[in-house]
Amino acid sequence: MSGNDKPEAASRVTLAEVRAAHERIRAFIHRTPVMSSEVLDARLGGRLYFKCENLQRVGAFKARGAHNAVLSLSEREARAGVVTHSSGNHGAAVALAAANRGIPAFVVMPLSAAEVKKRAVARYGAQVTLCEPTLAAREATAQRIIEATGAHFVHPYNDSRVMAGQGTSALEFLEQQPDLDVILCPVGGGGQLSGVAVAAKGVDPRLRVIGAEPAAADDARRSLEAGHIVPAGDPPTIADGLRSSLGDLTFALIREHVDAIVTASEEAIVEAMRLTWEVMKLVIEPSAAVPLAALLEGRLEVGGRAVGIILSGGNVDLDRLPWGQSARPR
Amino acid sequence: MSGNDKPEAASRVTLAEVRAAHERIRAFIHRTPVMSSEVLDARLGGRLYFKCENLQRVGAFKARGAHNAVLSLSEREARAGVVTHSSGNHGAAVALAAANRGIPAFVVMPLSAAEVKKRAVARYGAQVTLCEPTLAAREATAQRIIEATGAHFVHPYNDSRVMAGQGTSALEFLEQQPDLDVILCPVGGGGQLSGVAVAAKGVDPRLRVIGAEPAAADDARRSLEAGHIVPAGDPPTIADGLRSSLGDLTFALIREHVDAIVTASEEAIVEAMRLTWEVMKLVIEPSAAVPLAALLEGRLEVGGRAVGIILSGGNVDLDRLPWGQSARPR
Repeated sequence: MSGNDKPEAASRVTLAEVRAAHERIRAFIHRTPVMSSEVLDARLGGRLYFKCENLQRVGAFKARGAHNAVLSLSEREARAGVVTHSSGNHGAAVALAAANRGIPAFVVMPLSAAEVKKRAVARYGAQVTLCEPTLAAREATAQRIIEATGAHFVHPYNDSRVMAGQGTSALEFLEQQPDLDVILCPVGGGGQLSGVAVAAKGVDPRLRVIGAEPAAADDARRSLEAGHIVPAGDPPTIADGLRSSLGDLTFALIREHVDAIVTASEEAIVEAMRLTWEVMKLVIEPSAAVPLAALLEGRLEVGGRAVGIILSGGNVDLDRLPWGQSARPR
Repeated sequence: MSGNDKPEAASRVTLAEVRAAHERIRAFIHRTPVMSSEVLDARLGGRLYFKCENLQRVGAFKARGAHNAVLSLSEREARAGVVTHSSGNHGAAVALAAANRGIPAFVVMPLSAAEVKKRAVARYGAQVTLCEPTLAAREATAQRIIEATGAHFVHPYNDSRVMAGQGTSALEFLEQQPDLDVILCPVGGGGQLSGVAVAAKGVDPRLRVIGAEPAAADDARRSLEAGHIVPAGDPPTIADGLRSSLGDLTFALIREHVDAIVTASEEAIVEAMRLTWEVMKLVIEPSAAVPLAALLEGRLEVGGRAVGIILSGGNVDLDRLPWGQSARPR
């Protein structure tokens, strides 16, 4: 199967695969804590539980899917290393997973990627190749590296091994907080939401699973309404992890398992991010704030229920915070 | 004993009192998690464990001491409520503790106190009285409130009930991480350091307990050297929680139980604060960064040891961060 991952990648993700992924990656990832806040509970009128994937290795849930993909490779597939393209957390996650397996990693990043994210990838020993900030340039650059090195491609989300890995956070979440009524998680390309939905509905079919995305990047909501994938274009949202379009694999699972998609304005995303920092003392990135932002805007009736929110990541450029410039004194 | 807490306040704090405090306050405080970071361990060459009191109620360890003091009061002492003066976390902590006991709280705050801290105190239902930003004005204002209301005074640190309460974090820390070789904690007025030292040395006399303070506010170090309390003056440090002078009760215990005081420059405090945000994804205030700052500057040989650090609080004005203005783009 070397050089052609289609048969495996196209297989549908099941609860059993998510459980197998969890066993496979357990030694390499953190079992992240679940936190709550009385201040937020009082404000929103329910019980909110936050799964802190911002405290995950590489600062994001992406460590789960990348480890599952890299550790799933046969010796022969793994030998020449792995390649991916990513503007952020997935690149660092693949770099770390490859380092843990002792194989090379090649990460294609857009020139526009945040410095902090480039440094994170390089820190784990990956070879970073910069390219123009378009999907076409990223794919072409990755393809050239595959041809030159024979490295195995790990897509950031449209890959069943990645999706199964991302779903492991939901397994832990439901062990840590078994009475959840709803799980909200951000949706960009859909790798996390699809894996989480398969895992959560598999464990407890009564559980509602809801995706949250920026109103300015509501391609998942529109895709579900249209019945086919509506491309994201180049959406103008601060939630830089959620600018991708759905893939065919993630779309199929989201269509089957996800109950609804809710959206949040840019203002609410910034407010939710800041509120999480101020009240919970947790550094989260804008993408991770989208579910809480949707709740702040009343997009989902909380009404006393136990609502689980996945804080998907905490990688943010501390020199470019989206608030307070004008309010800064000296 | 109403209106005169001297006999109780002057009693020396013992391990038994810290244990009793822990039982007393347990239902009202969080058992905060202990976190670690491979990045920081690699950088400093040891195993670092962080006790996350920034995740404590009111965002700081102060919730412990305030609850112990307020819950220790007799019905008669408590009836007219409690009064304190504080520029920050202790005021919010007393306000919360009083709310939990169902008695009034009066908090004297300097006009210069951060807005976020005034809001926190008011949020818990305390009556806030503003005064000039001098110790004399704070004490005089508190005295007037005592005379007008009969409320019971709870000093921010120089009170054995407060000190015993602050020491409870060390009990938890050693339960959570029994192999610690050293505990570092910030020192301002010394309420936390003295309580932590009594508790930690009581549990394990081999453990080293070290205070950390800004080099710009090194009155604790100078007091130990001089053998008497050297007043802090009005030290120019960003660590606003550590500007107080020691009290007679805290000084006596620190002298008896603390192994050393280390200092950190202002630059290292900012670096340690930012590093904690970036790597650990934890919002901490400058005072909480001082122990790590001292390690970054090599003030203590880490050398493979298990070093416990108390992250004392996370209340920081997000509009006034001490970095990155010039690096900020638009």
